[in-house]
Amino acid sequence: MIGIFDSGVGGMTVAHAIEQACPGQKFIYFGDLARAPYGSKSPETIRRYARNNIEFLLARGAKLIIIACNSAASVAAAEMRQEFDLPIFDVIGPAVARVGRIAAGLGGYWRTGVIGTRATIKSNIYAREIQALNPAVTVYSQACPLLVSLVEEGWLNHRETKMILRRYLRPLRIKQVNALVLGCTHYPLLKPLIQARIGKRVKIIDSSVEVASVLQRYLARQPAGTYGESGRDSEFYVSDITTAARATARRIFGRPIDLIKV
Amino acid sequence: MIGIFDSGVGGMTVAHAIEQACPGQKFIYFGDLARAPYGSKSPETIRRYARNNIEFLLARGAKLIIIACNSAASVAAAEMRQEFDLPIFDVIGPAVARVGRIAAGLGGYWRTGVIGTRATIKSNIYAREIQALNPAVTVYSQACPLLVSLVEEGWLNHRETKMILRRYLRPLRIKQVNALVLGCTHYPLLKPLIQARIGKRVKIIDSSVEVASVLQRYLARQPAGTYGESGRDSEFYVSDITTAARATARRIFGRPIDLIKV
Repeated sequence: MIGIFDSGVGGMTVAHAIEQACPGQKFIYFGDLARAPYGSKSPETIRRYARNNIEFLLARGAKLIIIACNSAASVAAAEMRQEFDLPIFDVIGPAVARVGRIAAGLGGYWRTGVIGTRATIKSNIYAREIQALNPAVTVYSQACPLLVSLVEEGWLNHRETKMILRRYLRPLRIKQVNALVLGCTHYPLLKPLIQARIGKRVKIIDSSVEVASVLQRYLARQPAGTYGESGRDSEFYVSDITTAARATARRIFGRPIDLIKV
Repeated sequence: MIGIFDSGVGGMTVAHAIEQACPGQKFIYFGDLARAPYGSKSPETIRRYARNNIEFLLARGAKLIIIACNSAASVAAAEMRQEFDLPIFDVIGPAVARVGRIAAGLGGYWRTGVIGTRATIKSNIYAREIQALNPAVTVYSQACPLLVSLVEEGWLNHRETKMILRRYLRPLRIKQVNALVLGCTHYPLLKPLIQARIGKRVKIIDSSVEVASVLQRYLARQPAGTYGESGRDSEFYVSDITTAARATARRIFGRPIDLIKV
């Protein structure tokens, strides 16, 4: 089975993208709602939580891990790959590769924006990895710490959300970025608003979609059924359960999700 | 020593109010930043965290506990008083008593608003306790889940904060409340904005100030030095440490606070 974890329900945008990209693929999801959000916490604390989450997924039979949380991927992915002996995917690498591919196609000078939580932006991982891949790309990063709360409140089309987005995106607009990486799994839910505020000509790169597409290509190269168990359906575990979490899960999948509290 | 805990740094408004009300009184503060915020979590999870925090404060020598977090006070104070054999104060009782006193002085019909996190408002504890004290008081409650994030971001005078406050407070304005209880220890930092939006004639009741004043009267009845240790200064422990937390602590106390990570 494939194990996916996130600090909360945001990573379900990754699980949902995987359902779309790899029909029939089942997974075990863990959302650490009792300790969410991660984006405002320190790297040491986030690493400890990532370790706990992977151990939980292993115990449930996961043979491959997807870190569906940009904050955890930013500060913990490298360490977790050293500590655990199984394939670990994360939401950052695939989005970085996509920026690299587009930039290579265009050639020459290119500007991309990256938005994320405070932990993700402070780690500077997107800028570092994009420039390692293609030094001609200039990266402008912007922490958007209030967006996770706005999404979790379901304020997806409120005037206040639009104003806050305008404030966060203004510096990237001024830099006239050609692309914008959504470096947090909550942000795809705000994509229409973000597109409107950053400008229609800016290419939006959704890290959830990118990791799903990388996973699809990876699975196609493995013997059939390597990461599935016949007769076992996808499972959704959470460390805490609230009405708001249920509503967000439903909004992401477009159907009610049975959350199991552990 | 007096032990004070909160989910994060918001409870420092209580610690600061105690410093003002009881000069020389020292305390041990614990802010559970690694698991903050509590207000969006379930009652069972919040109770488990409250228990952990009290045990931590006891181990450090606390002889009296103040639950400086409305979410924890709402769903855990009664259970904690049963489980632990020492005086436990919380931020709710004193604010309720204050509403009761004002209402008694005015006589007759009276309307009060209460704002707080989702957990606090859902528990309905303010409405229940105020009406138990004085059934003539009508209580209107409003959850304001985004305010904690806005305070932690330091957006204390932003246009977006004013708009969000206007949206949250509109139902209470329409009901023409006479008083408004700030049922979250983060909210005192927004008091000027709240007062402007709810109307100058509305009496704002700050639960941090009320608990400090109740504690002051309680300490005055105890033998001197019952809850202090000579030569021991106040200590500030946190379960995680970030730049934003340091900045909020400084904003509350008006001086740098030395946070110790445990």
